[in-house]
Amino acid sequence: MALFTKVGIVGVGLVGGSLGLALKKKRLASTVVGTSRHAGSIARARAIKAVDDGSRRLDILAGSDLIVLAAPVQTVLDQMGRIRRLIDDDCIVIDVASTKEAVVTKANKLFARFVGCHPLAGSHQTGVANARADLFFHADCIITPVRSTDKAALAAVVKMWNCIGSRVKKMDPAAHDRALAYMSHLPHAMAFALMSAAPRKYLTLAPQSFRDMTRIASSSPELWDDIFITNKHNLCASIDEFTSQLGRIRLALQRNDTRSLFRALTAAQHKRQRSL
Amino acid sequence: MALFTKVGIVGVGLVGGSLGLALKKKRLASTVVGTSRHAGSIARARAIKAVDDGSRRLDILAGSDLIVLAAPVQTVLDQMGRIRRLIDDDCIVIDVASTKEAVVTKANKLFARFVGCHPLAGSHQTGVANARADLFFHADCIITPVRSTDKAALAAVVKMWNCIGSRVKKMDPAAHDRALAYMSHLPHAMAFALMSAAPRKYLTLAPQSFRDMTRIASSSPELWDDIFITNKHNLCASIDEFTSQLGRIRLALQRNDTRSLFRALTAAQHKRQRSL
Repeated sequence: MALFTKVGIVGVGLVGGSLGLALKKKRLASTVVGTSRHAGSIARARAIKAVDDGSRRLDILAGSDLIVLAAPVQTVLDQMGRIRRLIDDDCIVIDVASTKEAVVTKANKLFARFVGCHPLAGSHQTGVANARADLFFHADCIITPVRSTDKAALAAVVKMWNCIGSRVKKMDPAAHDRALAYMSHLPHAMAFALMSAAPRKYLTLAPQSFRDMTRIASSSPELWDDIFITNKHNLCASIDEFTSQLGRIRLALQRNDTRSLFRALTAAQHKRQRSL
Repeated sequence: MALFTKVGIVGVGLVGGSLGLALKKKRLASTVVGTSRHAGSIARARAIKAVDDGSRRLDILAGSDLIVLAAPVQTVLDQMGRIRRLIDDDCIVIDVASTKEAVVTKANKLFARFVGCHPLAGSHQTGVANARADLFFHADCIITPVRSTDKAALAAVVKMWNCIGSRVKKMDPAAHDRALAYMSHLPHAMAFALMSAAPRKYLTLAPQSFRDMTRIASSSPELWDDIFITNKHNLCASIDEFTSQLGRIRLALQRNDTRSLFRALTAAQHKRQRSL
């Protein structure tokens, strides 16, 4: 039996489009509709049957019993008020943004049945053209319920993620944002900065390590400047901690302090090998 | 016809062991002998037939017409004098170190027929246990001849790398070290520093981007502190440039300067997409 009668996906990109495909494949939604600012994305989403119907206008969302906010996070924040006026009070609303505190705080004021979600299944290959039904399979999905979160809505959302193969982990929105600063946002900032720093003439020599390290610098600037800005305090703190650790390596080099250098590299190697 | 009668590999680890396998597979050497500080590595190298004979003593190298210096770079620098006394004047000597200027300068004083080499085919999975005959296939190999380099030795070394499938690129030793600081040594320093900075409790959430970014933090500290120290001036300069670029992102965040932030991310994304 379908878990939802009508699902409205706001932003049919990689994540929104993939969720549409997964919901339809698992028959969790009778109807899926989608919106996008780009007419091309809507056409593509319809063509691959990620949605049954689509529009650039938000009106198409009316009558949904599940809304998925899947646009870049600043757009999500900007659109929430308009979406609230289109839907019923008992409609469940989720988002899939990479930062949670700003979205969850605002959404909980507007929607009676909101559940913050962050499927750890993005990619530098954005857009509905890269959508696939198994994007969330075997992936972690962090959900960030708060004390006031509607219990039935929470249960339905957990069930949905489980049905499409995700492992659900619950976290406090603030703890999520601190953790993701280190686990995702800092690495992205590092990748962008490394690409900026590397002289162009050397790039023909790039070995696999450099390619792996900068792969995520191909990520969408539209998505990532929103993520960086909405998690700026945690990201700045993680940049400072990282810069301090890199500075320790630099200082050991400058002083020819091979003992400190070896100790720092060995500690990092052990931590990597034991925990990942 | 074999290119060499007896090849002596000093340090049968990942690169030395793989070169032994490749030389024997392509019948480029009649005999291959190897040394290591570790008896276990010698036994393993013999077992997989990367070498015909091996020893912890350097004497086994006597009579070689090609010597491959494949130990960690500081060990290479330390052992060169002793190796010189064991071999004939016309023996060709190559190294495979990740930094070139220090090795090439010293080796050119000691050996009449030295050619500096750096196959870009290492891995965080070190040791002869990971050796494979095709490690150098389709990989770049940078060689760093200087004005005084023996032409016949150079030709033989280029032929050897070509025969085992490498694309040979010639560079000045100093230019090599500047380029590799950005393309390899800085990314390794970043990976070690990121592992050090990341709070242990968050590592269970590590998405693919974090795993890719820190893969090379599993690399051997013994190898990498030598590489860092022997290229410290270029590495420090690349750390400074990278830190400055990361600082620009941080400043834009702090100032809520979304325009500068978007411009920085977009420039990095374009550079990545166009050149890699």
